[in-house]
Amino acid sequence: MSRNLRIVVVGGVAAGPKAAARARRCDPQAEITILEKGEFVSYAGCGLPYLIEGKIPEVKDLLATPVGVLRDAQFFRAVKDIKLLTGKEATSIDRAQKLVKVRDVATSREESYPYDRLVLATGAVPVRPPLPGIDLKNVFVIRHPGDGMAVLAGLKEGKPQRAVLIGAGAIGLELAEALVARGLEVTVIEAMPQVFPGLLDFEMGAVLQRHLESKGVKVRTGERVASFSGNQEGRLARVHTDKGEYPADLAVLAIGVRPNVELARQAGLEIGQTGAIKVDQYLRTSDQNIYAGGDCAEAYHRVLGRPVFVSSGQLANIQGRIIGTNITGGKVAYRGTVGTGVAKVFDYTVGCTGLTETVAKNEGLEVVTALAPGLDHAHYYPGAAFVGLKMVAERSSGRLLGVQVVGPGDAAKRLDVAATAITYGATVSDLSQLNLGYAPPYSVAVDLLVQAAQVMDNKLTGVAQGVSPLALKELAAQGEDFVLLDVRTPAEVQEVRLKHPQVSVVPLGKLREKAKELPPDRLYIPFCKFSMRGYEAQKILQGQGFTRVQFLDGGVVHWPFELEQGEPK
Amino acid sequence: MSRNLRIVVVGGVAAGPKAAARARRCDPQAEITILEKGEFVSYAGCGLPYLIEGKIPEVKDLLATPVGVLRDAQFFRAVKDIKLLTGKEATSIDRAQKLVKVRDVATSREESYPYDRLVLATGAVPVRPPLPGIDLKNVFVIRHPGDGMAVLAGLKEGKPQRAVLIGAGAIGLELAEALVARGLEVTVIEAMPQVFPGLLDFEMGAVLQRHLESKGVKVRTGERVASFSGNQEGRLARVHTDKGEYPADLAVLAIGVRPNVELARQAGLEIGQTGAIKVDQYLRTSDQNIYAGGDCAEAYHRVLGRPVFVSSGQLANIQGRIIGTNITGGKVAYRGTVGTGVAKVFDYTVGCTGLTETVAKNEGLEVVTALAPGLDHAHYYPGAAFVGLKMVAERSSGRLLGVQVVGPGDAAKRLDVAATAITYGATVSDLSQLNLGYAPPYSVAVDLLVQAAQVMDNKLTGVAQGVSPLALKELAAQGEDFVLLDVRTPAEVQEVRLKHPQVSVVPLGKLREKAKELPPDRLYIPFCKFSMRGYEAQKILQGQGFTRVQFLDGGVVHWPFELEQGEPK
Repeated sequence: MSRNLRIVVVGGVAAGPKAAARARRCDPQAEITILEKGEFVSYAGCGLPYLIEGKIPEVKDLLATPVGVLRDAQFFRAVKDIKLLTGKEATSIDRAQKLVKVRDVATSREESYPYDRLVLATGAVPVRPPLPGIDLKNVFVIRHPGDGMAVLAGLKEGKPQRAVLIGAGAIGLELAEALVARGLEVTVIEAMPQVFPGLLDFEMGAVLQRHLESKGVKVRTGERVASFSGNQEGRLARVHTDKGEYPADLAVLAIGVRPNVELARQAGLEIGQTGAIKVDQYLRTSDQNIYAGGDCAEAYHRVLGRPVFVSSGQLANIQGRIIGTNITGGKVAYRGTVGTGVAKVFDYTVGCTGLTETVAKNEGLEVVTALAPGLDHAHYYPGAAFVGLKMVAERSSGRLLGVQVVGPGDAAKRLDVAATAITYGATVSDLSQLNLGYAPPYSVAVDLLVQAAQVMDNKLTGVAQGVSPLALKELAAQGEDFVLLDVRTPAEVQEVRLKHPQVSVVPLGKLREKAKELPPDRLYIPFCKFSMRGYEAQKILQGQGFTRVQFLDGGVVHWPFELEQGEPK
Repeated sequence: MSRNLRIVVVGGVAAGPKAAARARRCDPQAEITILEKGEFVSYAGCGLPYLIEGKIPEVKDLLATPVGVLRDAQFFRAVKDIKLLTGKEATSIDRAQKLVKVRDVATSREESYPYDRLVLATGAVPVRPPLPGIDLKNVFVIRHPGDGMAVLAGLKEGKPQRAVLIGAGAIGLELAEALVARGLEVTVIEAMPQVFPGLLDFEMGAVLQRHLESKGVKVRTGERVASFSGNQEGRLARVHTDKGEYPADLAVLAIGVRPNVELARQAGLEIGQTGAIKVDQYLRTSDQNIYAGGDCAEAYHRVLGRPVFVSSGQLANIQGRIIGTNITGGKVAYRGTVGTGVAKVFDYTVGCTGLTETVAKNEGLEVVTALAPGLDHAHYYPGAAFVGLKMVAERSSGRLLGVQVVGPGDAAKRLDVAATAITYGATVSDLSQLNLGYAPPYSVAVDLLVQAAQVMDNKLTGVAQGVSPLALKELAAQGEDFVLLDVRTPAEVQEVRLKHPQVSVVPLGKLREKAKELPPDRLYIPFCKFSMRGYEAQKILQGQGFTRVQFLDGGVVHWPFELEQGEPK
């Protein structure tokens, strides 16, 4: 080609600017234009809860580079040699003529931009169901910097005291922390029977819910918002659900996003079953000159082996880079996501990678699970805290399918290691020997993730038999007689206990001796704080001829039902 | 067999007790005996520097379980049904009769213990060269709890003011932190030309050395200790090296350990080329009834593809578990280490996994390297700090060979992810798409490790051309003319600068414009804090027809030579 390649990018937030910048680095001659409907570009939407909390002083911190340079049209021109146009809404694509039709938001004038390669990075939009009263003042969604500024203005103006957050996912729970820090009374309403249903299985959600409640957040699960009602000034006053109503001066809808695919659909591009734009492994749509990435496009899931819809700034950046390479003559395949997600919720880190038990079972996989919490570093080094951890593996192959974490300890590290292991198809047996960095401030000699793999390995090889708290509840419902054997030290028992009528206390150090007095035919469920000692107790009892012993998976830390004395530490 | 299996374990610190405890869980009937020469068992030797620092209140914290139960003979009997005997030194093995001969340390009486399976977990001993004056009072090594207590007593008694630490590895540098915290003037003497030579390449060591010096530690590299001299009371007064002498009231030798293999050697068991006991993948020695693990045995290195000697509490635990399984009828293969090591040194985390550039080159591998530091989490979220990172990959295959980290940010997480990736044979191209957990408190959208893989990928595919600081020094030595182009903002330049006569400042945002004024035939080396902008500058200049441009690998953060204004933040 004698003339320069013309690249048009629709969408200026994450995948779009990344694709444009990468394209520039790969092709210094290309003419590159970014069209963005809104006013803001290249912003860090994930920072909005912290802006609202006040941890981030100004909205411009979310729009600037780490050294404080604003990523505006001038920046894109000077540094990237990219034409960035804001207030330009792409309305249609003429694929035959290779033209993007655009409406100038300010003037409503129609314009058109010719392309050789078009990149769709139209993102996603928050779900906003047509509930009565949803347009009242102080009912918000959180997506754009403008949304964050609106909430801040709402906090300043009306001095709201009570907030209702609808949806207990990452944004809802990050906002719970932000608004509690701002001094508000916060209620979180979630339609599913648990918090963070997208990321966690039920019993992991229960541990997080206990933490939320310890911070004063009211959590209402299995409850659906029906409508909003306001005061005389048209400002929110009450949130009504299928089960009751809540006085509220402020509400935020955080019930998810859907891919913004109208432009692609109108242009006749194929839309996948997930509702996002279908792309091949090179991130091309059904039109070979049009690429799509980020929240508007499907992402291949390595464990599920099929496309999924994920909204993720990380994915957008990774895909943007690949698109930038491929539209300038490269050929890089996108290999897929493993669905890793993490969030800070008050003092806890919570996250998931791979499949939850729920999802794995829905896929028809036969799984083994372990609740295997542990300390994040050596107990004798100051600041050690627990990480609750659930591991899911395929029974037949021992392949690691998923890991969930929740707790005050350094859970993010274990999550990332697990994500890497899942990416490479690790088995539990492999993981049980993994050579990670060990020093007392960072880990115990055998890291808790490796320890968890050892627990799972013990289960898979039949050395250990565990019972999950949910299975135990089932047993109890069936009228099964059992002894919940608390083998902790007296000091630990003093601190926090399972609230359950069948608990009996025998410290581990006395169990070999005491076992002789225990009726051998009952079902014993030994447990401790984490259940390493619960497992040890199982082996002791089995060694003495007891045939019906299963340790309680996850111990006190993972007990999803009532405790006496609040949170375990 | 009608009678119970007799298991004898020699060594009561890490691999030994672990093997014994695992064996018990796999075989409730076995008769298990641990023979330990010393007084202490199952202790956390890695915690000793923190005991000396005062972060750990009492030595018993290193001898107890997380819930405060002392791991003594009574504990092993009651909980594990294991006979633990201290003060029993194994003196020889009669392999034909399957007997371990033992000397009781207190009574000097000879005893013998019959075994069906013998486990050697004799550990390692600190290297203590026969230097003049080494037996003076207040010249210590650090290995056993007794050593830690001796140093504490030394600190209490003589009120020492000046310490000399010999060896700049993990223990030496952890002690530097401990003794500075105790108010001592600390000098570290290292025979190699850099700190932490076992873990880091030269330029990574330089970053760590700068941090040590900022904390008041005097660092002397390339200097060998020759002798010690004392005062009239026989207490240390001076440390003499090949280059000078240092007044000192206290010295610690931390120049490594060697495997303790005398018992095995005497028994005619095969000793490997590393000097440690040779074992097969099931951790059996050359005698099928004798197993060895932990510091006394060789460990297979997955990247090198051959046995190495590593001293590691983690390895000891992982191998102990495998031995416990295998001596009771199981058959689990040990798959190997990737040489992961980490240490906290003042406010920095420092570590390595896989191979350093030095080691890789010694192996004859052709490598590409990148210095690719980054922030550990979103810059707008409070507390973000940098992690210095060096990546080493094989040029032909793009396989990740090693990662080193150093800096104030959360480096331990990236190290563990890299260790996992190396374990599974990841390529740089794979890693450049890795789906890790992203939320502003934990990471930037594209984690710094993934970013580093992208830098490496750019180098491997020819999109980026970097020059390492050491290669640059070489160029300068050859009289090459070049411009070190500082493309940072004026505020950053104000804060800290490379001390180099060829530096020229052009902020990135002005470079496209200014480039027209620059002579096109010179060699340009653009850089910034981390060199992402250095790379961007390279692409800008190349896009404008400059043919001789290479960005400075790692930027200001990794500059191993003099800076104006101290440490980068």
